[in-house]
Amino acid sequence: MRAAIYNGPRSIEVGERPDPVVAAPTDAVVRVVLGCVCGSDLWYYRGETPHAVGSIGHEFIGVVEGIGTDVRGIAVGDLVIAPFKYCDGTCPHCRAGVTSQCVAGGAFGNGEIDGGQGEAVRVPLAGATLVPVPGSRHSDEMMRSFLALSDVMSTGHHAAVSAGVRSGSVVAVVGDGAVGLCAVLAAHRLGAARIIALSRHPARQEVARSFGATDIRAERGDAAIGAILELTDGVGVDAALECVGTGQSMATALGIARPGSVVGVVGVPHDIENPMETVIFRNIGLRGGVSPARAYIPELLDDVLDGRINPGRVFDFETDLDHIAEAYKAMDERRAIKSLIRIGAKEDGR
Amino acid sequence: MRAAIYNGPRSIEVGERPDPVVAAPTDAVVRVVLGCVCGSDLWYYRGETPHAVGSIGHEFIGVVEGIGTDVRGIAVGDLVIAPFKYCDGTCPHCRAGVTSQCVAGGAFGNGEIDGGQGEAVRVPLAGATLVPVPGSRHSDEMMRSFLALSDVMSTGHHAAVSAGVRSGSVVAVVGDGAVGLCAVLAAHRLGAARIIALSRHPARQEVARSFGATDIRAERGDAAIGAILELTDGVGVDAALECVGTGQSMATALGIARPGSVVGVVGVPHDIENPMETVIFRNIGLRGGVSPARAYIPELLDDVLDGRINPGRVFDFETDLDHIAEAYKAMDERRAIKSLIRIGAKEDGR
Repeated sequence: MRAAIYNGPRSIEVGERPDPVVAAPTDAVVRVVLGCVCGSDLWYYRGETPHAVGSIGHEFIGVVEGIGTDVRGIAVGDLVIAPFKYCDGTCPHCRAGVTSQCVAGGAFGNGEIDGGQGEAVRVPLAGATLVPVPGSRHSDEMMRSFLALSDVMSTGHHAAVSAGVRSGSVVAVVGDGAVGLCAVLAAHRLGAARIIALSRHPARQEVARSFGATDIRAERGDAAIGAILELTDGVGVDAALECVGTGQSMATALGIARPGSVVGVVGVPHDIENPMETVIFRNIGLRGGVSPARAYIPELLDDVLDGRINPGRVFDFETDLDHIAEAYKAMDERRAIKSLIRIGAKEDGR
Repeated sequence: MRAAIYNGPRSIEVGERPDPVVAAPTDAVVRVVLGCVCGSDLWYYRGETPHAVGSIGHEFIGVVEGIGTDVRGIAVGDLVIAPFKYCDGTCPHCRAGVTSQCVAGGAFGNGEIDGGQGEAVRVPLAGATLVPVPGSRHSDEMMRSFLALSDVMSTGHHAAVSAGVRSGSVVAVVGDGAVGLCAVLAAHRLGAARIIALSRHPARQEVARSFGATDIRAERGDAAIGAILELTDGVGVDAALECVGTGQSMATALGIARPGSVVGVVGVPHDIENPMETVIFRNIGLRGGVSPARAYIPELLDDVLDGRINPGRVFDFETDLDHIAEAYKAMDERRAIKSLIRIGAKEDGR
């Protein structure tokens, strides 16, 4: 099969990889329909974090092409959403809903197992991992939203849930990448009364507004803290959602969080200062981490199918597998919020 | 009046201080019956953190001797519990239950206002701050438990509440000081099914058992992590309560917390490593900080009055104001869990 291959910083090429096969009775082989590029893929693309040379991409939807004898709950021909990590569904962490910490789990496209930026993927523990999509002949718009559940919408939702967003909450989202925008949508879905999005990029501001942001602020750093404290009568927000992972974004999130609140943190941390003094002396909690996407997808999928949320709007650039290098480049240069890759034909899905 | 005075590291003396008076209409003057020494007092006693030279101590119970014209809810002659910080009860943080972050609040014995280790204290914002104790002629045992609500029991409770301890939880408490022991009691009160106390000190182990600890482990550091993971089938505990604040104790708490859980952190931080990688990659939350004691005291007081909890058991050393230097010394040398100071006559309380 053909798949995107990481050769080193700023070098993504399409090459040949072995066709995946059902190797264990719990495996499935999924032919990929749509894949995409994650903001976290840019870390290795830019050479800022290491990554094994090889197959990449951890977000995809596709059609089941083959299953092992022990796979339950999915069938050949099903359209399925893959959460970005596979899991067994039975370990203590999975049973507690923290599927991202499954003792038997792992990540797609990590150099050891196929990524989603290729024509097909062997999915371990497929019955517990893959979420079948009911119905057939879904619109392209809906297909894009299914793809968003694989990671970015589930991660934005995790930020909101971790911070305890609920009906009436005053929320601020730090980060206008696809995860931050999805965090806006997640906060709106959970009933937040006011959602302040930090963004200085017109196209992203527009998506934020369409996702439910009530206020947009273009300031950064201390100016952003001052602006949001002013908006909240000096109190701070009930829930700050940190969706970037840099020192500045974290400092902003901690600075706008009201005492007693929990900052929802889902950005991969880079150069973040030790937050313990804030945790203790300002009574600001921290919670989040790697989203247990598998646990969240079913409820989010219901809302996508009913048309209540449309997270696929974060995809504002698209290409095919042959041109995937362009998809990385567009995100690296911030021309794209998130790049979608069309890989297989959707019509084959039921 | 006579009061303990901090003159510098390891120098606590009893001297004369101006008699407190009602200076604002919201003030009360409280004649102190019982005061005590806090584990956090040892930081300045040992010269490890700075402290203004002057009156000290932030935990006390006493009898109201005078009140300003705007004080509601308490009367002259009432026996009252002072939370370790005063607060106005009306600011947004107080209304949200985070009284420790009151915009008009402050701490007793901080060098600017009287401490509780003296004969009397001017209490600002007294109507919102002080909690009157109903009834009269309370036993000495009960008086000691009232005093424990001023800080140490409210702080242990805050650790447990922040970590989400509930019926059936598996809890571990890192730290066998008075706060850690009270955290055991708080976890027991909240219905924890299993409470593992880390302690290698026989007298503290005994108090921990009497407070509800089901398991005692003497290991420290990596050995403690290994032992507790073994006790929990490799999963970790539902709630780790960090009641020390050192790098080692925090590392232990993070190491034994199960993914998805929240570590309750109430130790004043000293040399703690940046926990962000753990927060993100192991899905471990952090929450706690300065206890909003004022918000917790009423419910805890009900349980003390009904005999359901007896947090005063943490006081295992006592003396009078003249010998307060001995009270510090006993705690500094770990001969005492917590030192009680008898200052006034309890009979004068109603």
